[in-house]
Amino acid sequence: MPIIPTVADWIAGTPGTISLGQGVVHYGPPPAALRKIPAFLKNSAHHKYVPDAGLPRLRKAFEEKLRAENGIDASGGRRIFVTAGANQGFLNALLCLCDPGDEVILLSPYYFNHEMAVGLAGCRAVCVPTDGNYQPRLAAIEAAITARTRAVVTVSPNNPAGVVYPPDTLRAINRLCAGRGIYHVSDEAYEYFTYDEATHYSPGSLDAEHTISLFSMSKSYGMASWRVGFLVVPEHLFDDMMKVQDTVIICAPAVSQAVALEALKEGRRYCLSRLPAIARVREGMLAAFSRIPDLVTVPPSRGAFYFLAKIHTSMDALPLAERLVREHKVAVIPGETFGIGKGCSLRVSYGNLSGEAALEGTKRLVRGLIEIVGR
Amino acid sequence: MPIIPTVADWIAGTPGTISLGQGVVHYGPPPAALRKIPAFLKNSAHHKYVPDAGLPRLRKAFEEKLRAENGIDASGGRRIFVTAGANQGFLNALLCLCDPGDEVILLSPYYFNHEMAVGLAGCRAVCVPTDGNYQPRLAAIEAAITARTRAVVTVSPNNPAGVVYPPDTLRAINRLCAGRGIYHVSDEAYEYFTYDEATHYSPGSLDAEHTISLFSMSKSYGMASWRVGFLVVPEHLFDDMMKVQDTVIICAPAVSQAVALEALKEGRRYCLSRLPAIARVREGMLAAFSRIPDLVTVPPSRGAFYFLAKIHTSMDALPLAERLVREHKVAVIPGETFGIGKGCSLRVSYGNLSGEAALEGTKRLVRGLIEIVGR
Repeated sequence: MPIIPTVADWIAGTPGTISLGQGVVHYGPPPAALRKIPAFLKNSAHHKYVPDAGLPRLRKAFEEKLRAENGIDASGGRRIFVTAGANQGFLNALLCLCDPGDEVILLSPYYFNHEMAVGLAGCRAVCVPTDGNYQPRLAAIEAAITARTRAVVTVSPNNPAGVVYPPDTLRAINRLCAGRGIYHVSDEAYEYFTYDEATHYSPGSLDAEHTISLFSMSKSYGMASWRVGFLVVPEHLFDDMMKVQDTVIICAPAVSQAVALEALKEGRRYCLSRLPAIARVREGMLAAFSRIPDLVTVPPSRGAFYFLAKIHTSMDALPLAERLVREHKVAVIPGETFGIGKGCSLRVSYGNLSGEAALEGTKRLVRGLIEIVGR
Repeated sequence: MPIIPTVADWIAGTPGTISLGQGVVHYGPPPAALRKIPAFLKNSAHHKYVPDAGLPRLRKAFEEKLRAENGIDASGGRRIFVTAGANQGFLNALLCLCDPGDEVILLSPYYFNHEMAVGLAGCRAVCVPTDGNYQPRLAAIEAAITARTRAVVTVSPNNPAGVVYPPDTLRAINRLCAGRGIYHVSDEAYEYFTYDEATHYSPGSLDAEHTISLFSMSKSYGMASWRVGFLVVPEHLFDDMMKVQDTVIICAPAVSQAVALEALKEGRRYCLSRLPAIARVREGMLAAFSRIPDLVTVPPSRGAFYFLAKIHTSMDALPLAERLVREHKVAVIPGETFGIGKGCSLRVSYGNLSGEAALEGTKRLVRGLIEIVGR
């Protein structure tokens, strides 16, 4: 079973649980964007299939965003696909790049859905552990490349570890991929979520031929349920990607694309205006963890809305997470999920709550750790 | 390139083209369903992820529809998945059932996206030709089953041929699959579109252990752009299917699910009330074709909204279809797309237009065939 529905089952069995589990933000899409829905639906063409690659105006708006914010030139109309979320975009990328038996390098701890997608595509996920601070080790990545390797996947800001990879690291991975004739798949769903002067960098700005970039409206614009993401591919993949897109989804939901277009008009300030509140929750959690240093270590992380906390115990993380829900009514995600081989880790998400609930959730987590692990 | 975007490109280059190409209906979703959107969006939980398998109330409503209309018992909560359209449902089924190298039996002429999906899943599409009237040949299907076969796929009412398979034929295929321990994947996206007393039959009513049934809101309820379909699976596949669903899409778009729920309250009468107008277009086309019997043969077809017309020419269908757009401003889909090995066939779709436009489209098609093929 995938972990999110598993934890959802525990929560369903324990009413009143506060979730620091799922990766969602506490706000929804821009209200102004929602107000435009009725006008969009008046056009009968908008109920039929819309173009596979996405509404032309939405692709154009995203092309401008990529140029202005990410340094990516996606002009020409053959680089951008609107997908039903970044997960579908990632699967598209795999189905486009890989044959069964090919290898895809993931950095562990990895995003669990990436590992599952590689398996579903009939490929082998080659997991290269990051260092003690969850940063990529270039030499280890290079050593893992074989003749069957088709891509290296990075997620920065990172899910699950919350770390931001320095631009130099991402550039080095990107150059390594280009040099070896493989692709760099860069998942940037959390691009706006950085703290303490951390800087987001888009490797797609360096190389248009070997980079596939993934973006999402789910986090930045509070649009998780709407299923809108963007896949930016080298132009030479356009025709193959059309086949994949047509086969998997035909087109992303049109009404969601319409809301995404309006949301992009508000732009990143919509997300950035909500970031201080999320940052305060983050600070509060860090302060709480710092008071139990014999139980918890949190490696430096300045992005997304996750900590991947190392718990000083010989317990496995899965039963610990289950007990935290059932006995302390607070949900987090066990580290096994992310392919961490040793030690007990918990992913703590802090984007979903603000104010009181966040404070209470943190209290329960600390109390739970003290009672379960500290005795 | 997938055929639909290819034809769309021809059309874009020939303004004023009437499309008898894409498989869409001329109407949109129930207006009453659309009016419920604002209330749904007021609940902030509806902007976060909703359950992977779908909104519980929607799954329940579909369970009742299956019992009442299809004779399928999907109770227990572990048989129904809401997907982002039936294409995504079909891909889910393949990724769940098959390993790379496995075989899936398609009946040709097949639905092109099925063939592409089998290829993307790393499997081999084994195409078993239907008979001269596009009806399945049971002995040929049986002979095509090998140790690697995982499923037989049927589409009834059929895309592209518009034929309805008799209940006895579907039962025989279903029993064959059960007997050989493989799955029968039954695509029923066009279940409500039957004419002249043809009857739709759901093989899932016969066997809950070996049948996977696919349904769609795209045609019946005019919801193509909304991306909502249903996947009905044997209960023993539920856990594996959860993994696939979480990896491919997480959940179908929530707002679309909300509209689907309201649409199901109107029920099939919404579609059935529009069927007489579509049937009139169908009759008009059949009459027009009957006037050029030396150029066109249309095998008996009483379902969906397609004819797969056999054109008496040595031309290939692809260049013929392109000339019909460029010289006569009418779009149809060339038969090569559907895996027909020999002869020239064109798929003519009659669900998209009513009244004047349909009449004019038919005239152009007949005139085009006379001028291009008849000379």
